[in-house]
Amino acid sequence: MMIIMKTNATPQQVEHVIEHVKAAGLNVHLSQGVEATIIGAIGEAHSIPTELFEGLDGVEMVKRITQPFKLASRQFHPENSIFPLDGFTVGGDEIAIIAGPCSVESRSQIMETAQAVKEAGASALRGGVFKPRTSPYSFQGLGEEGLEYLAEARAQTGLPIVVEIMSQVQVDLMSKYVDVFQIGARNMQNFNLLRVIGETQIPVLLKRGLSATIEELLMSAEYILAGGNKQVMLCERGIRTFETATRNTTDINAIPVLKNLTHLPVILDPSHSTGHVDYVAAVARAAIAAGADGLIVEVHPNPAHAVSDGKQSLKPEKFAEMVKQVGQIAQIMGRRLATIQGEYQPLK
Amino acid sequence: MMIIMKTNATPQQVEHVIEHVKAAGLNVHLSQGVEATIIGAIGEAHSIPTELFEGLDGVEMVKRITQPFKLASRQFHPENSIFPLDGFTVGGDEIAIIAGPCSVESRSQIMETAQAVKEAGASALRGGVFKPRTSPYSFQGLGEEGLEYLAEARAQTGLPIVVEIMSQVQVDLMSKYVDVFQIGARNMQNFNLLRVIGETQIPVLLKRGLSATIEELLMSAEYILAGGNKQVMLCERGIRTFETATRNTTDINAIPVLKNLTHLPVILDPSHSTGHVDYVAAVARAAIAAGADGLIVEVHPNPAHAVSDGKQSLKPEKFAEMVKQVGQIAQIMGRRLATIQGEYQPLK
Amino acid sequence: MMIIMKTNATPQQVEHVIEHVKAAGLNVHLSQGVEATIIGAIGEAHSIPTELFEGLDGVEMVKRITQPFKLASRQFHPENSIFPLDGFTVGGDEIAIIAGPCSVESRSQIMETAQAVKEAGASALRGGVFKPRTSPYSFQGLGEEGLEYLAEARAQTGLPIVVEIMSQVQVDLMSKYVDVFQIGARNMQNFNLLRVIGETQIPVLLKRGLSATIEELLMSAEYILAGGNKQVMLCERGIRTFETATRNTTDINAIPVLKNLTHLPVILDPSHSTGHVDYVAAVARAAIAAGADGLIVEVHPNPAHAVSDGKQSLKPEKFAEMVKQVGQIAQIMGRRLATIQGEYQPLK
Amino acid sequence: MMIIMKTNATPQQVEHVIEHVKAAGLNVHLSQGVEATIIGAIGEAHSIPTELFEGLDGVEMVKRITQPFKLASRQFHPENSIFPLDGFTVGGDEIAIIAGPCSVESRSQIMETAQAVKEAGASALRGGVFKPRTSPYSFQGLGEEGLEYLAEARAQTGLPIVVEIMSQVQVDLMSKYVDVFQIGARNMQNFNLLRVIGETQIPVLLKRGLSATIEELLMSAEYILAGGNKQVMLCERGIRTFETATRNTTDINAIPVLKNLTHLPVILDPSHSTGHVDYVAAVARAAIAAGADGLIVEVHPNPAHAVSDGKQSLKPEKFAEMVKQVGQIAQIMGRRLATIQGEYQPLK
Repeated sequence: MMIIMKTNATPQQVEHVIEHVKAAGLNVHLSQGVEATIIGAIGEAHSIPTELFEGLDGVEMVKRITQPFKLASRQFHPENSIFPLDGFTVGGDEIAIIAGPCSVESRSQIMETAQAVKEAGASALRGGVFKPRTSPYSFQGLGEEGLEYLAEARAQTGLPIVVEIMSQVQVDLMSKYVDVFQIGARNMQNFNLLRVIGETQIPVLLKRGLSATIEELLMSAEYILAGGNKQVMLCERGIRTFETATRNTTDINAIPVLKNLTHLPVILDPSHSTGHVDYVAAVARAAIAAGADGLIVEVHPNPAHAVSDGKQSLKPEKFAEMVKQVGQIAQIMGRRLATIQGEYQPLK
Repeated sequence: MMIIMKTNATPQQVEHVIEHVKAAGLNVHLSQGVEATIIGAIGEAHSIPTELFEGLDGVEMVKRITQPFKLASRQFHPENSIFPLDGFTVGGDEIAIIAGPCSVESRSQIMETAQAVKEAGASALRGGVFKPRTSPYSFQGLGEEGLEYLAEARAQTGLPIVVEIMSQVQVDLMSKYVDVFQIGARNMQNFNLLRVIGETQIPVLLKRGLSATIEELLMSAEYILAGGNKQVMLCERGIRTFETATRNTTDINAIPVLKNLTHLPVILDPSHSTGHVDYVAAVARAAIAAGADGLIVEVHPNPAHAVSDGKQSLKPEKFAEMVKQVGQIAQIMGRRLATIQGEYQPLK
Repeated sequence: MMIIMKTNATPQQVEHVIEHVKAAGLNVHLSQGVEATIIGAIGEAHSIPTELFEGLDGVEMVKRITQPFKLASRQFHPENSIFPLDGFTVGGDEIAIIAGPCSVESRSQIMETAQAVKEAGASALRGGVFKPRTSPYSFQGLGEEGLEYLAEARAQTGLPIVVEIMSQVQVDLMSKYVDVFQIGARNMQNFNLLRVIGETQIPVLLKRGLSATIEELLMSAEYILAGGNKQVMLCERGIRTFETATRNTTDINAIPVLKNLTHLPVILDPSHSTGHVDYVAAVARAAIAAGADGLIVEVHPNPAHAVSDGKQSLKPEKFAEMVKQVGQIAQIMGRRLATIQGEYQPLK
Repeated sequence: MMIIMKTNATPQQVEHVIEHVKAAGLNVHLSQGVEATIIGAIGEAHSIPTELFEGLDGVEMVKRITQPFKLASRQFHPENSIFPLDGFTVGGDEIAIIAGPCSVESRSQIMETAQAVKEAGASALRGGVFKPRTSPYSFQGLGEEGLEYLAEARAQTGLPIVVEIMSQVQVDLMSKYVDVFQIGARNMQNFNLLRVIGETQIPVLLKRGLSATIEELLMSAEYILAGGNKQVMLCERGIRTFETATRNTTDINAIPVLKNLTHLPVILDPSHSTGHVDYVAAVARAAIAAGADGLIVEVHPNPAHAVSDGKQSLKPEKFAEMVKQVGQIAQIMGRRLATIQGEYQPLK
């Protein structure tokens, strides 16, 4: 249920309504937009009559949220969610470009890649240190060592770092290092992990599961939002279908559908959604033309020798070309590539 | 198998090789590009040694086509296929925009729509007169009456007309009217129909089946090409997946994959691939950004009263807006919207 | 709409109601069951009030059919449809076992197979003479020559023959030979073909499309029923999913779902639904345990040399073993294998 | 790599080979079958030559395991894995029937259900206490309170209990109560959880992910086996496809495919794989006919009031009927329903 306050409602009136919501056994989520203050009354709200709040001072209107996702819905939060990420913002006019290797493999590999993607126009650095591998016998990531290399790369380039978290027991360690938690496709419905992440204040990139519906993706975001963490980016990374010509099928429809249903920023991962370098740039351009707020792209200085995902990792030159094309499309869409403000420190 | 002739090969040498190909029991398909003349030797070619042709005068090289589709492959025909369509060309720099109602419903409806889409920048007119309906009790189309209205609309606007053919028994009738045969998703593997269409010289828009792989789409195109009809456009119109938020899932990956595998023009149908007016423009822009050669879009003057597909049919104003956006993306891609040369005759 | 007559309604009363239905512009479909006579009033029935028929003499009740498929629904025809097929019946206690090669390849091949499957307990013979092949360069079937061989095999074994029809132009030729028209998965929504088949009185085996929903399968059956041909068997043959361990995914759920929704017999094709001989018998047993009315199975005397589908064709010995197992399951289900009455004539 | 020992190899020879395997940096997994002792040498084995072990005393043969899953493969362990579960065995002649409510809702609900399913012939009791719910606002389970009720139900009925674990942090608590850990579809690739479970010696029921391939399911089992826990049951519970007539599509093919690829027992969950009570019995029978080793079925004394999955939960009477039918099919398959040996103590 959402309680829309009058434009001229006083802070005292808002506070008074909040007390009533709490007294009704519901949780309070405040959305203060330019147009209106909306109080989300979330929980077992369907059994509570709207009349309970309609007569209170300062209340314009009380409406039920018809979507199963509440805090994630555009009904509850009509304006785009925009939040800062180390010098630029996500969800507004700026297009975020997160780039880097699938796995952090060594100090030199991540330092080299970080600088290359920075120069090519990336606004954030990705790199996995705990890897969800299908086989228990495959490389599982460098762990904390990798986090240290990433921190060093950030210090050098000013790029915020985006790292996948695989389990709730990793939260404490990773919180010390990362700027954005990535939740991978296989963990999209790891509800225990979602709850724990919801209790942090660290931004999240939540990837859509291989066969998750758009509604399920939003319900998973709802777990994080319900915990109090409002900085959630949604990521389309391709879904599993019968087609085998590409690794996954990019659900480009998901971009306008999500922008319609939710206020959260929407990012596309053309590396996983196609699985092949030859198709990454075309799908990256398509994403921005369809209205996406950013991209996350795998880049590796030497894809042929990557320990994972080499086939879909762009060389820095190809990535630079892609960024240029994407920038032109962004302009048509009335937007611009994010530029990080952090000082660039050349490698000694 | 393809026999690549030397740049300076004489017509007599080409003729001589062709005779040898025929003598070997294979069919001849000639591809005369700017760079080279290639003789396709198609049929049970795998049992015939390449040596049979390698020594002939004027032959540069003999190579097997490794793809299961031969004439449709870029191996056989490295340059884009470009063919004329009533005053503009498909597959080259021009972006074709085919628009119109799902079904021809009446004379006035199609005349009104034709003029509206022409004014908004469409380059061809679509409209169904034989409708493949799931239910035997639904409207099945106006038949020949509809073809007559379409012909009149063409006369008025100069727009070539694209009409779905459902059965081989309709070829004679439809050949008198249509500029492009559309083969619908449900008939993509109606091999008897494909063969008969392959024997005409009328351009074809071949839609991908609901759950056809990209390779199967190309194999169906091969049926038409093998018959001698080279004017085949491929159309991505969304595939069937588990996602129910949209009618189908637009396989945007298919655009760069097809442009890589084949020389045939690739068209996208954002109306069927999304199933909802709110998503058509975003996906149309994405298609062009991904490299598509054109669009086919449902437009209806009064979608709420359309006998079919009203939910996904744009009003003319919305369509005009979409065309404008698509034109801007086309420019970024180094292309331009096709403009028809036909005389525009205002309705009396 | 269905008009349920009183148990003691007279033929004159039935006739009188039928006249009223026709006068209302609807088509009449009569279902005379043991329990009740039901008059189906099919067409644009939603705009006609039930009151129009409720007052007529002999009418017990008038109900709308809520399913989009009308004649195919169990609402309209509560009892199982049972129809004869050369000495046995389909849809009742008998389990039909249709077996034979994918393609008729030669006289000796089909004669040998026919006798082998007859001896192993098959109740009908399958064999393709017009083959829907993905590639235009693959073997396309023997055509009429194949039909003649099949007719000879029937004469020898007494087995009725089931043959795929690919186009409406083949109806006249094939009607002279076949006992059952098979409509293949790729033609399930070839509506022109469905209509023409609906006008014959030859039984039909209608295969589910690769990605057709159960409802769409029933809508396609409705096309045939609406034409007046009531002898339709539905065939689950596996659907296309992301799983690649088998050629298709057998939708075993479809068996109880179809038995619930429709009165038509349901057949399963474990050869196409698994694509591999090692899995055919297990899935055949499962089908009968789930309530299927029969099986259609590919058998070839020499699978390694079959021109098509060798990987999924059982050798006669393996088929005989499968039949034995299936017979045991049938007994548990209160049913028995169909045994054909036709005279068996040993090959001279 | 697997080192197959001679039939008469001595324990000392086996020990000697094991030392060599360890010295090569590989992990040792011993499989002592009736026919042969096989030493699995697992890890980065592809770079180690087989010659290293071929000359050792007692070694019959050294072979590489070609499947990506090693310990789970039938190559490595040719005989069925059979392991005890509180008085009966899984994977041998006995068919396990695990039944109970989706969620433990109250003491009386679980006690009543436990007795009902015991009387109807169940061999184990299921019941969730931590529930993976799509919405953060849905009932999330009773937690430890639920475990206590389950333990009490076990004490009363002798039925071992099967309970879903959602996170590695629950292992210690749950180990005190449960007989079998269930890993749900959404956690099939929660690799951290799989690793931790692999370090326990508690049997596991591993459910296939919604869109996991059969190979991925086996790779997830491999995570558990590699940790040393050999008691893994695989569970087919339906996959996500385009079909919406049922909640999921039961992949019945997976039964014979899995029985072919792996030695691990295979269980089917017809409640989730169909999503509707009307279809559960048919698919349960099909599973056993196809060769499954057991079933896991949702049963609720009052489905209409179940807090979750009421639509697919059988009433005890319907369940009893299903068990009877399944028992008959089991007999045809040369098997029998498991009967638990535990003392039955009527509720005071």
